[in-house]
Amino acid sequence: MSYVLYYSPGAASMAVHWMLIEMRVPFEARLVDIDAGQQHDPQYLLLNPSGRVPTLVVDGSPRHESAALLMLLAERHPEAALAPAPGSAERAAWLESMIYLANTLLPAMRDWFYADSDGDPAGAEAVRALARRRIEQACEHLDARLADGRGYLVGGTLSTADLLAVMLMRWTRNMPRPALGWPHLARYIRGLRSLPSFIELNAREKLTEWRNEDR
Amino acid sequence: MSYVLYYSPGAASMAVHWMLIEMRVPFEARLVDIDAGQQHDPQYLLLNPSGRVPTLVVDGSPRHESAALLMLLAERHPEAALAPAPGSAERAAWLESMIYLANTLLPAMRDWFYADSDGDPAGAEAVRALARRRIEQACEHLDARLADGRGYLVGGTLSTADLLAVMLMRWTRNMPRPALGWPHLARYIRGLRSLPSFIELNAREKLTEWRNEDR
Ligand SMILES: N[C@@H](CCC(=O)N[C@@H](CS)C(=O)NCC(=O)O)C(=O)O
Ligand SMILES: N[C@@H](CCC(=O)N[C@@H](CS)C(=O)NCC(=O)O)C(=O)O
Repeated sequence: MSYVLYYSPGAASMAVHWMLIEMRVPFEARLVDIDAGQQHDPQYLLLNPSGRVPTLVVDGSPRHESAALLMLLAERHPEAALAPAPGSAERAAWLESMIYLANTLLPAMRDWFYADSDGDPAGAEAVRALARRRIEQACEHLDARLADGRGYLVGGTLSTADLLAVMLMRWTRNMPRPALGWPHLARYIRGLRSLPSFIELNAREKLTEWRNEDR
Repeated sequence: MSYVLYYSPGAASMAVHWMLIEMRVPFEARLVDIDAGQQHDPQYLLLNPSGRVPTLVVDGSPRHESAALLMLLAERHPEAALAPAPGSAERAAWLESMIYLANTLLPAMRDWFYADSDGDPAGAEAVRALARRRIEQACEHLDARLADGRGYLVGGTLSTADLLAVMLMRWTRNMPRPALGWPHLARYIRGLRSLPSFIELNAREKLTEWRNEDR
């Protein structure tokens, strides 16, 4: 099994990068600096015609969509136990959480950060207003789910749903209401940020903000 | 295995309803008329606090998110072969397609149909404009993928990705650019609409528009 991850620091590639580190499987990481526009390089567009990160080249085939990549990796590496096994009691809850994060929070984040370039800049403020509302509703929803004191979203152990959720929560850090403002979500985030794999991920992506030391 | 599907005619429940019919598994279908506001009934909110359809009660547990339900059913009924098997060559493409439809088209459709109620009505036109752009880009993308003449999105046979895609394409029927306006997509849609399970689905949901006979 060979993996080459095309990533940009702190971008949608982060959850996949985190998972590869957490699973301790060999992989190669290649930087695509989206602030420098490298996602539009002709070479990169051959791998990912939509010009986005992440791309994970799996045994030679380029694959996309962070949530799909997390699900694929969980399936290819059952020994890492980052998803409840098929047929297990928690499987339905895991699938539902993955899709919820992928089709509620992730697109709202795209709206928040890319309203000006994905759409008409004249309408961007209205798009961001709805995005903000949805992101805060999602934080509310996640906070309520974590109110029972659980440390993980599904099944009592770390899963890809946590990797995806924490990446998304990180993106709220400069929004009007950062996720750390919700009490249960804050406890949950701090717990996950203390994982050695998260610390290593930040070191490799050279990210200094939003680590446990920072606040 | 017991299934109770809460559905509204032509809504996001349609792909799940279609799949249950196509697989010929026993299930009970219960109508939640969203035009009549039945998704807000206190009894229904106990099953689905977000007040949306579908809800699929799986062995007594209410589950949500159409894309997740399709994936769950595919896993619980491998004999129906509505997803490439785990470990197979087409598995990554299937996961990617499911997530792409779930996090690109599905949320854009929500924006198109619900901009006024999900957000501030004053901003709805801007939200719909971006939604329209994204939906047409997705039609373009799907049309390009189907340009090789294939009848199914993934792996040469019917999969959950087709059920989800066709449901979403149906929702474009009264939009400025309906999906049937793209040539490869139109051929693909007509092929899938000719399936006995799709005809049966329309009969059961009492849907008369957007069948092959109509145009
Ligand atoms: N649905 C995609 C979203 C990917 C995405 O939007 N990535 C952003 C970074 S967070 C990107 O590549 N932006 C660069 C651009 O759009 O130019 C996924 O989850 O992988
Ligand atoms: N992400 C959900 C979306 C469900 C959804 O938005 N359903 C709509 C019908 S297409 C609904 O229930 N609308 C009623 C309402 O929001 O009041 C899924 O795919 O299941």
